[in-house]
Amino acid sequence: MVAAYVEELGPAELIRVGPLPVPVVGPTEVLVRVEVVAVDPVDTLVRWGAFPTPVPLPFVVGRDLVGTVAAVGAGVARFGVGDRVWSNSLGHGGRQGSFAEYAVVPPERLYHLPRGVDPVQMVALAHPAATAWLGLHRHARAQAGETILVGGGGGNVGECVVRLAVAAGLRVLATASAADLERVGDAGAEVVVDYRAADVTAQLRAAAPEGIDVHWDTSGHHDLEAAVALARRGARILLTAAGPEASVPLPVGAAYTKDVDLLGFVISNATVPDLAAAARAVGGRLSDGTLRARVTEELPLSATAEAHRRVEAGRVRGRLVLRP
Amino acid sequence: MVAAYVEELGPAELIRVGPLPVPVVGPTEVLVRVEVVAVDPVDTLVRWGAFPTPVPLPFVVGRDLVGTVAAVGAGVARFGVGDRVWSNSLGHGGRQGSFAEYAVVPPERLYHLPRGVDPVQMVALAHPAATAWLGLHRHARAQAGETILVGGGGGNVGECVVRLAVAAGLRVLATASAADLERVGDAGAEVVVDYRAADVTAQLRAAAPEGIDVHWDTSGHHDLEAAVALARRGARILLTAAGPEASVPLPVGAAYTKDVDLLGFVISNATVPDLAAAARAVGGRLSDGTLRARVTEELPLSATAEAHRRVEAGRVRGRLVLRP
Repeated sequence: MVAAYVEELGPAELIRVGPLPVPVVGPTEVLVRVEVVAVDPVDTLVRWGAFPTPVPLPFVVGRDLVGTVAAVGAGVARFGVGDRVWSNSLGHGGRQGSFAEYAVVPPERLYHLPRGVDPVQMVALAHPAATAWLGLHRHARAQAGETILVGGGGGNVGECVVRLAVAAGLRVLATASAADLERVGDAGAEVVVDYRAADVTAQLRAAAPEGIDVHWDTSGHHDLEAAVALARRGARILLTAAGPEASVPLPVGAAYTKDVDLLGFVISNATVPDLAAAARAVGGRLSDGTLRARVTEELPLSATAEAHRRVEAGRVRGRLVLRP
Repeated sequence: MVAAYVEELGPAELIRVGPLPVPVVGPTEVLVRVEVVAVDPVDTLVRWGAFPTPVPLPFVVGRDLVGTVAAVGAGVARFGVGDRVWSNSLGHGGRQGSFAEYAVVPPERLYHLPRGVDPVQMVALAHPAATAWLGLHRHARAQAGETILVGGGGGNVGECVVRLAVAAGLRVLATASAADLERVGDAGAEVVVDYRAADVTAQLRAAAPEGIDVHWDTSGHHDLEAAVALARRGARILLTAAGPEASVPLPVGAAYTKDVDLLGFVISNATVPDLAAAARAVGGRLSDGTLRARVTEELPLSATAEAHRRVEAGRVRGRLVLRP
């Protein structure tokens, strides 16, 4: 089969696209014929070794796929050959990745593709929408009626957070780049502020004078002075997406006297049950039209190295989807 | 009645000890004849106005009391005249304080003194042990089998955390001053490190090579670089007790990739049900001998200003208990 893989960890130039043996499916595994995959920013970190996680070598890159079951181990009951399926947690934790014609998936990490859902939309949302759901519901425990502030509301995760938060009954404020203001408003944010505005904190305070309950800057830029100042008592501030060396001042005194929690997470650490809960929710919210991916471009698997370079340069608005 | 009160917020010199009218008990309130009270550090912050909370003027200082019910409003069913009782949440949030011969207490903030429990031990533990319980169980959600690191293990809150954590089935590491090492070991900590040791972090890492699950520096000194470095995946770091202006560097990248949560709280923000749950636990753990207070000195109510000065100077090891 054709696969996109590296023989050692390092820059995108190391990615080769060429033949590898079709993986052997074990008795408790599923072999999937891959139809579409998508590039996640974390794929580039795993490929560099900047996100430390065990990987086999040669290592097929990528976490996400949509495809069709090609074979099942004798111990697998929940899937049959021909089932349309998806996954979003390959390519780390010792598992091979998804950027290949075939991939082996543990069945507890495989989900049925909901009827009527477009495979390209599904693969494009698999990772950012699951991240958004886990942050909102497992970590921040967002409640209907609360106010959330979403930083980077036009990003892949950010727009999913906006849409899932609106669907969960929260009031949504957001920041975004000037080019994305309208898009984020269309996604359901009640107030969208240009993050470059000189008075962004004042605008947000005016929009939520009683304070922010859940604050998630999905851009990875963490201004905790401003976040704590805007926080209502009992607020939850999510910590995600910053660079591995990032360090910022935390106003401890102001934070703890308001019972503020700062909650860090990466989807890579999510448990199998939490991933499955996120998958059910994401499938449902894609079926009902709540979620919608911004698919920038569809590329052949041979463009994997280029796609990695574009994602790590931060120049992609939306998602790159590839077809093996 | 005699009370210790201020007519405006400010330094300890403003505290007067003299006559005030016995408060009128409303139909849903309880009048308590006060037997013993204790000085909490937060009492001095409230008196200064450094912890912003509504207070009536003249304002009777203090949160904690043990006493006997002297009268009950017609709508109060749970208490009767003569009941031995305690409280730990007066003197803030609009409520008058406890440093007086009589105090009015909302019945939902009043608890029966467990049979056989020494009133001086009860009042000395009322605030620090409830704080310890809320931090451990409501905020950090500590689980049996986890490893906790308690900073300031010889402090009033710190020793309660050590004792309650041991009772809850955690493995306890602690730091303490040289003078307190033995005391903290006696309280149940498996490893106690002098917090002034040059290699304190290395000693703690050697004691818990798999990392710390719950980290609570009760001294208010927050070295989040060290705390995050020592954290196991999914760790909870509590934020309490620092000065209102305290700000420290938070290694965001290292924290979120390990799913670390930083949880800020003050007992002043605790809900009535959470305070009641803490009170049940503290009463039980005092009855069964798990908890033990370090009572430094018993003083008359006339010494309130001096007691405040000693507590805010940080020179009290243990608790000051006063008798109206």
